[in-house]
Amino acid sequence: MLNADEVRKDFPILNRMIHERKLVYFDNAASTLKPIQVIEAIKNFYVNHYANVHRGFHTLSQEASQMYEQAHETLAKFINAYSWDEIVFVNNTTEGLNLVAYSWGLHNINEGDEIVLTVMDHHSSMLPWRHIAKIKKARIKYINVTNDGYLNYDQLDEVINEKTKVVAFPIASNVLGTINDVRKIVKKAREVGALVVADGAQSVPHMPTDVRELGVDFLAFSGHKMLGPTGSGVLWGRRDLLQELKPFKVGGDTIKDVTLDDVIWLNPPWKFEAGTPNIEAAIGLAVAAEYLMKIGMENVRRHEIELVEYMLKMMLETFGDEIIYYGPKNTHHKTGVVAFNVKNLHFHIVAQALDYFGIAVRSGMHCAHPLHYALRISHEYPPPQSVPDEVDERLKRFGSVRASFYIYNTKEEIDYFIGSLSMIILLREQLKTKPVEAVCTGT
Amino acid sequence: MLNADEVRKDFPILNRMIHERKLVYFDNAASTLKPIQVIEAIKNFYVNHYANVHRGFHTLSQEASQMYEQAHETLAKFINAYSWDEIVFVNNTTEGLNLVAYSWGLHNINEGDEIVLTVMDHHSSMLPWRHIAKIKKARIKYINVTNDGYLNYDQLDEVINEKTKVVAFPIASNVLGTINDVRKIVKKAREVGALVVADGAQSVPHMPTDVRELGVDFLAFSGHKMLGPTGSGVLWGRRDLLQELKPFKVGGDTIKDVTLDDVIWLNPPWKFEAGTPNIEAAIGLAVAAEYLMKIGMENVRRHEIELVEYMLKMMLETFGDEIIYYGPKNTHHKTGVVAFNVKNLHFHIVAQALDYFGIAVRSGMHCAHPLHYALRISHEYPPPQSVPDEVDERLKRFGSVRASFYIYNTKEEIDYFIGSLSMIILLREQLKTKPVEAVCTGT
Repeated sequence: MLNADEVRKDFPILNRMIHERKLVYFDNAASTLKPIQVIEAIKNFYVNHYANVHRGFHTLSQEASQMYEQAHETLAKFINAYSWDEIVFVNNTTEGLNLVAYSWGLHNINEGDEIVLTVMDHHSSMLPWRHIAKIKKARIKYINVTNDGYLNYDQLDEVINEKTKVVAFPIASNVLGTINDVRKIVKKAREVGALVVADGAQSVPHMPTDVRELGVDFLAFSGHKMLGPTGSGVLWGRRDLLQELKPFKVGGDTIKDVTLDDVIWLNPPWKFEAGTPNIEAAIGLAVAAEYLMKIGMENVRRHEIELVEYMLKMMLETFGDEIIYYGPKNTHHKTGVVAFNVKNLHFHIVAQALDYFGIAVRSGMHCAHPLHYALRISHEYPPPQSVPDEVDERLKRFGSVRASFYIYNTKEEIDYFIGSLSMIILLREQLKTKPVEAVCTGT
Repeated sequence: MLNADEVRKDFPILNRMIHERKLVYFDNAASTLKPIQVIEAIKNFYVNHYANVHRGFHTLSQEASQMYEQAHETLAKFINAYSWDEIVFVNNTTEGLNLVAYSWGLHNINEGDEIVLTVMDHHSSMLPWRHIAKIKKARIKYINVTNDGYLNYDQLDEVINEKTKVVAFPIASNVLGTINDVRKIVKKAREVGALVVADGAQSVPHMPTDVRELGVDFLAFSGHKMLGPTGSGVLWGRRDLLQELKPFKVGGDTIKDVTLDDVIWLNPPWKFEAGTPNIEAAIGLAVAAEYLMKIGMENVRRHEIELVEYMLKMMLETFGDEIIYYGPKNTHHKTGVVAFNVKNLHFHIVAQALDYFGIAVRSGMHCAHPLHYALRISHEYPPPQSVPDEVDERLKRFGSVRASFYIYNTKEEIDYFIGSLSMIILLREQLKTKPVEAVCTGT
């Protein structure tokens, strides 16, 4: 079992006071805090072993190269890849998904082809394919989301057909937490020979991942959402596909030889890791992955289910229908993400008020605008019947508050959150008068 | 003046022993060491202020966002940009140059158009344009390099003409150190209305840079080559061009709004910084830039000129024509990079032997294969008359040893280097028998 009280000791930032209150960090779907082991690994690298990699002949470069290559091994182990060279280090999930869209899409998608996405996509899964579709004159189709927060699997047969070249989807929604039925989607995509690209940003940090079981062609995830440094991320790909795939960013370290007329690319993963890589990020991410493997990803998952279970129970008991909750109610169908609105109190105001209690949550549309528009997720009650044409109006009226958990969160923190939210709801009429600025909010 | 002895105190890794000798780090063109100020800034961020950016409403996100935005300001100041929003944070120079090639090139280059590059290009400046040229069926032309290591400016009028859409070149060569005549190239490119893209990887860290004076359209440089963390880099662009430019990687944080059919992109730099950015890298790079500004970039430049001057003098005095030196002899025409070969002793063996003395240098073709082939840079004496067809043969026979300096290097280290190299030359016949593996070497 995961002992959150023990885990907390490894996270120095949890001692931080916010408005004279102890920090309660419920913004883990955006990014997680870093354990001292990761922070010290970065420092150790710069203080004792730093150099550029790719096997310069001097000792420091050899050491740095070895650490960097070992990081590929560790991440391969983390997701049970067949081999270290299926691991491409990228800046974040977004880059991993753009890599596939550009490298595969620019060269394999043609006019009239179809690409299937979902309405619950994070923009980072949705926009790269739309961008390439526009360049290549391909058509985009969407799998819808039901009102209770699941993908509409009844549509699969209709949407995915012989014209479908790519199916891209999130394994878990970053707003609703919904864990999608990968098997079902993969099965259908395989029937028509489509490429399957999974956004693992919200699943890989939170549950066991086995790419051999998953059956997808590519999987991208972010290191900073699983205790790693910012700038760390992974694109995993099927080895034969990575071999065939054209490079994305090109330049130093992607090649075996270059003449004025010709290039010989290196094997994966090097041909995709252009220029001096983010060595520090890879080393830090490997330490983060080791840390999580020591805890056990089943335990991480179980811990989050317990927390969400408790949170939903407490919210329902305490607030009844004062709160609008979004997403599956079955906690085994979702990750540790709880999106909600307080009826008729603006989501940004709720987030700001929670911050006054030291509680960090996100508010807004969480880089999933189409999902918010489709389900008409808004603090307004009754919810807007339609989506306004005017952009600023849309950005102001649609959105949610999102609390998201990780290994260091506790039921005591949820109790404190519920107490704080009670106070906020009590003060709703006064708080309503506060001005709200529409802001761009990250994942 | 720069006091290297004082500077050295800030670099903890300089206490590292290599084969029981004190580290002499002459691999600065590949990457520089990090001062404790940068290392501690990273730690401080994770220990006290960590969160995702883009202005979530909670305190930590506000703090992180402010630090991240401030980093744009600092880098703008570092290169005298007009405004913070001309600074796009990228993973490295390579990414910056790929960004321009893809975003501008995919949408503005057409069949039959010409792109002008140089034979001294780093692969990261050369390959992105060749990649796009191939996709768009454009033609590549090269400015040659003279035997003494300068661009052949006599060719400008012939190579750059009405068909030229882009001129891309390095401000300084990463092998020869040559500082190119930017003014001359810009003038010619302007005459034909071509876009001018400069690779600043080897210039920005080593001399004052004023983008208002420079006259180019885009300038990319790497943070890790100027005391910053790995994964830090900058693409500077003219504001009007950044505004017009299509996004490159797309996804979270690049947009103002997304519906199922439409996207409204954010203004620069955000539309180019897709997904969770490398916040830590930006914060670390800003501290590095402050550190360098405090020293003064004129002093950095002067220090390097002094070191190169001394190095070249000592090499000539000590070794005479036992050493083949590549690049301009006038130290005011070059950066702190010294590429050479020991006659008839393989460059990789020289590098390995220097490592035995605790001296870190690079060996190989330094991501500039065409330059090595063009000038027939090899340890063989007399040099190969032609470039073999067989790749492994080429990789084995062409290359150089590169020593490169930075603010913490001293004349005492050069003395030690000269002594060590004397020993190596003395042992040349024994060393020759060592096996050499061809390896991929970084910048």
